[in-house]
Amino acid sequence: MSSAAKSSLSANSRRVYVDGELPGVKVPFREITQTPSRNFEGSLVTNPAVRVYDTSGPWGDPDVQCDVTKGLPALRAEWIRARADVEDYEGREPRPIDDGYLTFEAANRARIKDVGKLEEFPGLRRRVLRAQPGACVTQLHYARRGIITPEMEFIAIRENMGRDAAWAAAGDAPRDSLLHQHRGQSFGAAIPSYVTPEFVREEVARGRAIIPANINHPESEPMIIGRNFLVKINANIGNSAVASSIEEEVDKMRWSIRCGSDTVMDLSTGKNIHATREWIIRNSPVPIGTVPIYQALEKVGGKAEELTWEIFRDTLIEQAEQGVDYFTIHAGVRLPYIPLTARRTTGIVSRGGSIMAKWCLAHHEESFLYTRFREICEIMAAYDVSFSLGDGLRPGSIADANDEAQFAELETLGELTKIAWENDCQVMIEGPGHVPMHLIKENMDKQLETCHEAPFYTLGPLTTDIAPGYDHITSAIGAAMIGWFGTAMLCYVTPKEHLGLPNKKDVKDGVIAYKLAAHAADLAKGHPGAQYRDNALSKARFEFRWEDQFNLSLDPEVAREYHDETLPQEGAKLAHFCSMCGPHFCSMKITQDVREYAAQKQIEADAALDVGLKEKAREFVETGGEIYRR
Amino acid sequence: MSSAAKSSLSANSRRVYVDGELPGVKVPFREITQTPSRNFEGSLVTNPAVRVYDTSGPWGDPDVQCDVTKGLPALRAEWIRARADVEDYEGREPRPIDDGYLTFEAANRARIKDVGKLEEFPGLRRRVLRAQPGACVTQLHYARRGIITPEMEFIAIRENMGRDAAWAAAGDAPRDSLLHQHRGQSFGAAIPSYVTPEFVREEVARGRAIIPANINHPESEPMIIGRNFLVKINANIGNSAVASSIEEEVDKMRWSIRCGSDTVMDLSTGKNIHATREWIIRNSPVPIGTVPIYQALEKVGGKAEELTWEIFRDTLIEQAEQGVDYFTIHAGVRLPYIPLTARRTTGIVSRGGSIMAKWCLAHHEESFLYTRFREICEIMAAYDVSFSLGDGLRPGSIADANDEAQFAELETLGELTKIAWENDCQVMIEGPGHVPMHLIKENMDKQLETCHEAPFYTLGPLTTDIAPGYDHITSAIGAAMIGWFGTAMLCYVTPKEHLGLPNKKDVKDGVIAYKLAAHAADLAKGHPGAQYRDNALSKARFEFRWEDQFNLSLDPEVAREYHDETLPQEGAKLAHFCSMCGPHFCSMKITQDVREYAAQKQIEADAALDVGLKEKAREFVETGGEIYRR
Repeated sequence: MSSAAKSSLSANSRRVYVDGELPGVKVPFREITQTPSRNFEGSLVTNPAVRVYDTSGPWGDPDVQCDVTKGLPALRAEWIRARADVEDYEGREPRPIDDGYLTFEAANRARIKDVGKLEEFPGLRRRVLRAQPGACVTQLHYARRGIITPEMEFIAIRENMGRDAAWAAAGDAPRDSLLHQHRGQSFGAAIPSYVTPEFVREEVARGRAIIPANINHPESEPMIIGRNFLVKINANIGNSAVASSIEEEVDKMRWSIRCGSDTVMDLSTGKNIHATREWIIRNSPVPIGTVPIYQALEKVGGKAEELTWEIFRDTLIEQAEQGVDYFTIHAGVRLPYIPLTARRTTGIVSRGGSIMAKWCLAHHEESFLYTRFREICEIMAAYDVSFSLGDGLRPGSIADANDEAQFAELETLGELTKIAWENDCQVMIEGPGHVPMHLIKENMDKQLETCHEAPFYTLGPLTTDIAPGYDHITSAIGAAMIGWFGTAMLCYVTPKEHLGLPNKKDVKDGVIAYKLAAHAADLAKGHPGAQYRDNALSKARFEFRWEDQFNLSLDPEVAREYHDETLPQEGAKLAHFCSMCGPHFCSMKITQDVREYAAQKQIEADAALDVGLKEKAREFVETGGEIYRR
Repeated sequence: MSSAAKSSLSANSRRVYVDGELPGVKVPFREITQTPSRNFEGSLVTNPAVRVYDTSGPWGDPDVQCDVTKGLPALRAEWIRARADVEDYEGREPRPIDDGYLTFEAANRARIKDVGKLEEFPGLRRRVLRAQPGACVTQLHYARRGIITPEMEFIAIRENMGRDAAWAAAGDAPRDSLLHQHRGQSFGAAIPSYVTPEFVREEVARGRAIIPANINHPESEPMIIGRNFLVKINANIGNSAVASSIEEEVDKMRWSIRCGSDTVMDLSTGKNIHATREWIIRNSPVPIGTVPIYQALEKVGGKAEELTWEIFRDTLIEQAEQGVDYFTIHAGVRLPYIPLTARRTTGIVSRGGSIMAKWCLAHHEESFLYTRFREICEIMAAYDVSFSLGDGLRPGSIADANDEAQFAELETLGELTKIAWENDCQVMIEGPGHVPMHLIKENMDKQLETCHEAPFYTLGPLTTDIAPGYDHITSAIGAAMIGWFGTAMLCYVTPKEHLGLPNKKDVKDGVIAYKLAAHAADLAKGHPGAQYRDNALSKARFEFRWEDQFNLSLDPEVAREYHDETLPQEGAKLAHFCSMCGPHFCSMKITQDVREYAAQKQIEADAALDVGLKEKAREFVETGGEIYRR
């Protein structure tokens, strides 16, 4: 949590804000400044600054003093209050069992032992908010009533990131322009050339997008998850019974948003679940997701069959009051589907799915998540917690992809989506998992149809099982593809998947792999403005503006480090060559020379072929024919 | 080059050989042994050993003594001689300029200074072979005459790797069998259920596959590159004017084949090009490719315009005599196409392409690679060097993908393919580059049509420009997809692409990323037997056979290291849990319990739902309901 780390990904860039029309709407971007190009005559030509989507929140603003023990400013507090549909109350009293202990004393003792200075989150405790009786506070509710919330306007500005009015004309821009972009293939998505607040509202109203924004997490900056917006990514963090501390987890959250994660899921399963989550939420500018059944299971000592609706319900309220923005609920794991997994190669691999399967088998009853679904909706609606309907029966191996169990559950998730929508709850649907490339599209197509275009949120998918240690790559392949096909958010996979708990480096590797996969998907969908950053970086590369190339990349630190490994001298970054080819031999250099030559001689490239070629050739050789600089 | 490194990827595995019918055909595989499973009654059930394709050659056989200063045994020497169509002769005398020096003394002085002990390759120098006058020694020539060479039989056995007679019945195998495999989508490929030597011959005869096998590289183990065979990968190594030594390059070659590279390209552009190549070829069990124009350019002091047909021709013969198995020839960079690149974002990024473009512009003449193509064919045919027709105008950025320049060149490569075939030369076609996902398939489709199904060999493609430092991932996405669509060989990209010369770690990262991409492509194509290793690994994973999971993976060392980072104790690898969830909470454990429970109670999974559910539930709870082991 050093201040050095704070600016690690922001070399040559600054925080800028764009104001909205509604009060308090002030949208952050990171603006990367570029050095000028030198044209053929040797004079300098300015290169425009490039604005990029910025998930780092106040942590990424050098002008804001942040303190992890105080938490972030409550950006949305005024907006929430202004709607005059909430009431505050004294929240549920935290209990030792929330952190897996029998007494508070034991909890604090253990925490001090484990993590040194960190104990209970010391920041100001606000009174808890919930919807007034009879009111509904979900963004879906507002959207359906035609209300454009400040959250929606914030998102519209944020999503337009790379585009402004100029983008409307991008199709006609000349090929050498930064604005050039390929026409995409979006498989029926309805991506607008410009995102208006009204468009955001419509998409939310139709259930095609969600804004995870618990009224008790006013620290969060609004973002949207939907097929007609930029593809988002999620990073999973969280401790387990055998490893990690609160401090490490808060650190991983901050690290992942600095690298670009759009949401973070806290999947803690060990001790201190409540305390860890409090630290994370109070310091997180991005929506936080959880899987409440994990904590509920800890409360019953790990015995799935002892879970009850009452314990689960209490856990939902506990977490909703803390400000969790979306809950994974495995309500599609129905009793009749469980036997469909018995002959699988890898059975049930979702933790939530297997807990519920065990419960169902022990009780020989339908899952309480399914039977109590409407009651769950009421809780979600009162705080605006979004549903992430879990795929408890997702395939855990290539062999099990797209099987009967998986698609049976998907049907149920479609049913539940409708019930959630009846209750004005926002919903997204979780997807696999392990899927060979040729079976990926079927997942997307079936999800769109079965779940009525509710946003899809997939884990990878991994496209082969044989590369543990490299599953950020096996899954980035599947993630990029399914993102292209229409998945709205990609849940990252780290190199440690299947092997261990990710450390900070793994979190970064996972986030970067998914940022590039999501971006590849945006490019393939033809998302307006998506190609701008690629164009700017490639132009910088072509012009040997090394620092600009580094700064425009997803991970400037690593790009610079790799370059410097072979050519550490500072001068090398001004050189018109690189270590791959050396000073005498560089294809980019040669091409640049070819282009300069054409310009100097005032030859139109295409006319050059018709007349006077021999003449020009002699001239070229006579004037030295030497256009390498040595 | 330590012996420890030798076995680094072979834990719990041994070298086995399968004999062919033709004399001397003895095909190497790596066989990974597995530990037994424990079934519900607690008795042990054997798991079959898994055979994998092995590119490591004699270096991977602990029973063979290899010495880098002596080179590898000449496996194919007898086969080549037995065809009685070659003559030996005193090869071209090496010259100081071959290594970029004016005198031999300067060359040796420089080499001793640079690399210490390594000078001229000290191993036995054989007399050089070439086709007898009037004879043709290419595998294509033999194939067209109906001859099944030992090389073809070797390949047939090798390609059947995972399959034997059992595979014919795989379609009917039960779902829980290791033999289960998804039906693939191969986009019109003609992959047989079993590869016979005759099938290999037919594919080569049709030009749909090549066997790069220079008669002066008898150390190489036959392999095939074609759409109806396993997808192959290539690793590029080679020094440059600013970095690296001979020893490093030989080491990278050995490292890349140990990780699974099917061919290696030596792209050296600095000094000692001839000597480096000699060390590499003499020690390489995989085909070696080069780009001869790089060395020719060094011979004229880096001045492209001073290149001549004579210098180029001399370089081709020099390299053919050494045993290079395939040459990248950028004969498609025609004068009229050069202006098409002038308005590109990144012009010409292929080094070979830009050299030829510069030459063409300087002389205002058609490229000598194009005008002398038939003469080049004669040389290639005399040694059986395969063509890799270079894509000198490939796009170097997303912006330039699939443009007029690129596809104009592809048309020419199609023409040249026919000319090469007229001369009984083997041909593959190189492809891009930087391409957004939605434009990848067009590349494959156009190549198949334009180049008459000659094998495609692509560099990635990279699916976004914004992640320097991670281009092994941006490109593994594109590589997996284009491999699925029909590309026969994928040229790797390392994390250092665009930034610097890859070191050993980068080579490994590149090779593993491409091995997994190629495998993902084989799975998606439905390559018979491809899923076997995934199934075996997933079964091991599900049964908590940690060592088997590591050993079956592409990189056992890294898998083990990542696991041990969180749980270093040896006992943890026998534990029925892992660090992600801890001992009390593991979804795989729960599923296994669910399955055991079903078996113990003798309930047919699907019958369980119909009768006596409540009864069974009570029984379960009464008997403890405790199926976690603690």
